[in-house]
Amino acid sequence: MYQLISDLYLICRSITGDGVRKTLAILQQNIPLKINQVPTGTKVFDWTVPKEWNIKDAYVKNAKGEKVIDFQKSNLHLLNYSIPIQKKMPLSELKKHLFSLPEHPDWIPYRTSYYSENWGFCLTHRQLEALEDGEYEVYIDSSLEPGHLTYGEYYLPGESKEEVLFSCHICHPSLCNDNLSGISIVTFLAKHLSSLSLRYSYRFLFIPGTIGSITWLSLNESKTSQIKHGLIAAGLGDLGKLNYKKSRRGNAEIDKAVIHVLQHSGQDYQINDFSPYGYDERQFCSPGFNLAVGSLTRTPFGQYPEYHTSADNLDFVRADKLADSLEKYLAVVDILENNRKYLNTNPKCEPQLGKRGLYGTFGGTQNKKTKEMATLWVLNLADGNHSLLDISDRSRLEFSVIRDAANALFKGGLLELTIN
Amino acid sequence: MYQLISDLYLICRSITGDGVRKTLAILQQNIPLKINQVPTGTKVFDWTVPKEWNIKDAYVKNAKGEKVIDFQKSNLHLLNYSIPIQKKMPLSELKKHLFSLPEHPDWIPYRTSYYSENWGFCLTHRQLEALEDGEYEVYIDSSLEPGHLTYGEYYLPGESKEEVLFSCHICHPSLCNDNLSGISIVTFLAKHLSSLSLRYSYRFLFIPGTIGSITWLSLNESKTSQIKHGLIAAGLGDLGKLNYKKSRRGNAEIDKAVIHVLQHSGQDYQINDFSPYGYDERQFCSPGFNLAVGSLTRTPFGQYPEYHTSADNLDFVRADKLADSLEKYLAVVDILENNRKYLNTNPKCEPQLGKRGLYGTFGGTQNKKTKEMATLWVLNLADGNHSLLDISDRSRLEFSVIRDAANALFKGGLLELTIN
Amino acid sequence: MYQLISDLYLICRSITGDGVRKTLAILQQNIPLKINQVPTGTKVFDWTVPKEWNIKDAYVKNAKGEKVIDFQKSNLHLLNYSIPIQKKMPLSELKKHLFSLPEHPDWIPYRTSYYSENWGFCLTHRQLEALEDGEYEVYIDSSLEPGHLTYGEYYLPGESKEEVLFSCHICHPSLCNDNLSGISIVTFLAKHLSSLSLRYSYRFLFIPGTIGSITWLSLNESKTSQIKHGLIAAGLGDLGKLNYKKSRRGNAEIDKAVIHVLQHSGQDYQINDFSPYGYDERQFCSPGFNLAVGSLTRTPFGQYPEYHTSADNLDFVRADKLADSLEKYLAVVDILENNRKYLNTNPKCEPQLGKRGLYGTFGGTQNKKTKEMATLWVLNLADGNHSLLDISDRSRLEFSVIRDAANALFKGGLLELTIN
Repeated sequence: MYQLISDLYLICRSITGDGVRKTLAILQQNIPLKINQVPTGTKVFDWTVPKEWNIKDAYVKNAKGEKVIDFQKSNLHLLNYSIPIQKKMPLSELKKHLFSLPEHPDWIPYRTSYYSENWGFCLTHRQLEALEDGEYEVYIDSSLEPGHLTYGEYYLPGESKEEVLFSCHICHPSLCNDNLSGISIVTFLAKHLSSLSLRYSYRFLFIPGTIGSITWLSLNESKTSQIKHGLIAAGLGDLGKLNYKKSRRGNAEIDKAVIHVLQHSGQDYQINDFSPYGYDERQFCSPGFNLAVGSLTRTPFGQYPEYHTSADNLDFVRADKLADSLEKYLAVVDILENNRKYLNTNPKCEPQLGKRGLYGTFGGTQNKKTKEMATLWVLNLADGNHSLLDISDRSRLEFSVIRDAANALFKGGLLELTIN
Repeated sequence: MYQLISDLYLICRSITGDGVRKTLAILQQNIPLKINQVPTGTKVFDWTVPKEWNIKDAYVKNAKGEKVIDFQKSNLHLLNYSIPIQKKMPLSELKKHLFSLPEHPDWIPYRTSYYSENWGFCLTHRQLEALEDGEYEVYIDSSLEPGHLTYGEYYLPGESKEEVLFSCHICHPSLCNDNLSGISIVTFLAKHLSSLSLRYSYRFLFIPGTIGSITWLSLNESKTSQIKHGLIAAGLGDLGKLNYKKSRRGNAEIDKAVIHVLQHSGQDYQINDFSPYGYDERQFCSPGFNLAVGSLTRTPFGQYPEYHTSADNLDFVRADKLADSLEKYLAVVDILENNRKYLNTNPKCEPQLGKRGLYGTFGGTQNKKTKEMATLWVLNLADGNHSLLDISDRSRLEFSVIRDAANALFKGGLLELTIN
Repeated sequence: MYQLISDLYLICRSITGDGVRKTLAILQQNIPLKINQVPTGTKVFDWTVPKEWNIKDAYVKNAKGEKVIDFQKSNLHLLNYSIPIQKKMPLSELKKHLFSLPEHPDWIPYRTSYYSENWGFCLTHRQLEALEDGEYEVYIDSSLEPGHLTYGEYYLPGESKEEVLFSCHICHPSLCNDNLSGISIVTFLAKHLSSLSLRYSYRFLFIPGTIGSITWLSLNESKTSQIKHGLIAAGLGDLGKLNYKKSRRGNAEIDKAVIHVLQHSGQDYQINDFSPYGYDERQFCSPGFNLAVGSLTRTPFGQYPEYHTSADNLDFVRADKLADSLEKYLAVVDILENNRKYLNTNPKCEPQLGKRGLYGTFGGTQNKKTKEMATLWVLNLADGNHSLLDISDRSRLEFSVIRDAANALFKGGLLELTIN
């Protein structure tokens, strides 16, 4: 996963354009991604697909002809979606188009201007302070023309048409945690799941933030009723603890599943209520959809100083944290896949487990006790009203223990699936 | 408000009689109060309107003819509702009719005997201890005769026939916090609201405690179904923090509104569950009515030593605390008036606020962020199920910020009112 | 109660056999217990009534002919349900059938093997360590033959056919807290209640653990719908605080009643959620029955070192703790018997209590205030939706105070019973 992030790092992505296409092409080496192109001008709910933006080069030269700001050194130097320009101007006028971070004088900020036409450069505060009075040449070789909004989609069919959605944004240039980490996690999650036999169908979206989810929802409205669970993946490679932001519903199965995983992780974690600010859960959880979509990240956006700066680089994300994040996503999928409701076929008094070899035959003392308890809990609560996750939460036993007990009882004929 | 308290202080009020009439006449200088007279003997539910009590003079003279207790010095000296008497008696007999406070030897207690005929005097404990053996002359020139129970009522019609009720008791003689402060707050609240264009109709009651609310409810039973929200006003001028006692329902809109105001006041406060002991909420919240009526006071009755003593005087109430109390009552009214449910007219994905001038155009950085969040919260929860107060509470933003955001969105055509 | 425990202590009980019959015969001296005999082989849900086990003698002799383990000294020495055997064997083979407690070298453990045929001896760890190499003679004069499972039942009819169930297990040999204390409490509870006029009918079960409750439920399935409340009695004589384990329903009336009693006991206590492990609540709360049956004990099973060892002896249980436990059981019964729902016959405003002698006439200042509050709470919440226990809990007043207030109001004509 870390290697994939490295491979994608230098590409200059935006909400449209060739950077997105290059990125998706690299992902296609891992998963059979379908590339969708939506023409500029397409009406998507209250919005319109914007002109496509592409960039060849950009710099600012001083009076001596030296490049004092150079897009080739970092694509963050350019205000993303800058209109083309070639002009000389004094420092005073140039400065109106420069952005720096006085509190982090060595970092380049990341700025965009998608929906109002503008141009600008981002630079370190030290660079800004070193600029001397004089005339500067500004050169931006960009194009902003009718074209397409491009996104990637991978649909992995399962037994049921009911879907689990994983979505990440692909519109950020050289930023690693936000959101190459999300892209990488979703790619490897998809790759892993494609090798399994699955109950649910899975949909993986690689879309530009905001306009991408609005576009997808607008063009695929009829599919949304099949989305039973979903997660927005972002910020999954930093050192921070895992943070789960609940869906708007607040107590959906996806909320309970993620919280269960975190509670039993043995790690520090944080649960946050839904708020209508953040990543694309804003759109999936808008009141007209209200889908069961949460967001599982590490440190939330905006809560680490490196966020949206050049310091969110290859040093900032760590392979072990990516691995830990993927493990948690897989644990959530394991719960969703196995979280069924059963009926005890022998509901009056306990069945005699001993004669069926389901009692006292478990190996390992500690283990044995836990398995016995899991068996008793499943039998007691398998009344059609409790899912296995409900039983896990009520018994305070890990889902996998409850799942295994249920499987053994099911094989022993003591459980049957409810039809629901 | 403090001046009104001063003007009313010396009048000897009771549950009936001329003191009440004088008091209401003074209030009529501020608001167009209607005076109601209910004849003695009128059946009001399980009760009967009592005889009217009036008092001209009362004293106790010692053997030397000196007035050792004198109603003219403080109307608290007389047991309220004392029957007329003129009699000589030894100290031992007199003492059976004397009430003092050994733990506060300089204060005169306030005592009543409305429903069993009796006479008596209240005096400081120092006065009591100074009484020498000998014969005393007791003189009470009171009358207890068929007459009327008198109360004041001001009905302020609004757009809707649904009502908000504010009630205070007017039966206490020279006591300032309990309850001239309540009378004063309700008077000035009524005065202020009468200048506004209002959604709800408002009813302001100035009634004697217990028998007054029972009488009003009995004679106006058909109106009670219109009372949607109500507050009993009392004890609003002391130094203590604000105390809210919830309605019997416990989670009525009035409860949520008052709690919201207190939570965002930046001041210390206390929320108390309903109990069937206290002021007239006892009657409005009796099970046959169960109205959404709470009580917003400062220090609750009985929880300050000055309560029901001569120390609840003009020094005990403070103009700034009265002003603070009125401000909270007005903030509650603001919530009730504006607490509507809206529908997002563009519920699928977020609308593009930028093109409507509803985003990023707010002045002031801190302010701007809060307003943006309020706008997003309103859009997200305007699904017809959440009132603006619900949205305020869920977002933890102050009601006024949510209200303003809703108003801006409504003007921008992004919200419509629900019919409910 | 302590005397009854002493009388029963030396009897060798098991899940079947003469030990149970002797025990029940002694109980019949206190209460008119009906003895039921269920033949071996009877199908009871998923189980089958086992062969009856009886024991005459058992020992292990060393090569010198000395009895190194002797059933006559303690019936705990024998693995309960051991098959008959008479055989010589070396120490190495014998040891496979010996059980001791290294962490408590002076205690004999209690072990059973009901459902897989086996034989064995339990002994102190010191005894085990003293055994020298050599040949040993093992002698167990037991019988395991078709016979009966025996249990005792006492049905005490009340006004209503709706029942309260108290159940205890009778299958343990010389163990005092587990469960002679439960047997003793249930016996004396039954004895006491039989002298009263009761609203509910009461059923007292004295049954072997697990197989006994399964047998009773299987043979009496049609009666279970009458069981409205129930408690499993066990471990009620030790020094520990009272522990209540909730029914599977978690908020049944029995749960609220027991919790109320403990909250107002002035003693330390513990409330535990239901779990499907423990005493016979496992069967009564299996999903096919889901009866409102909890378990009120002192220290829970397995949480004291003496549990299931010879140290759970006559010194371990205390008469004062038994008395305290019985008092709590009686307080629970008092709540169940009196926990009715009333309607205020005068629901609009408060009734005038004074004219009915229901106000201010209570003796004792502190008491008077509490009784007045209880009276007001009952009147306020007697709307047909609140039971007296609900009113107690909401007012935080003890049930008995609320009960007395309701009785006085009922006599005064201010309450009527709801039909429910």
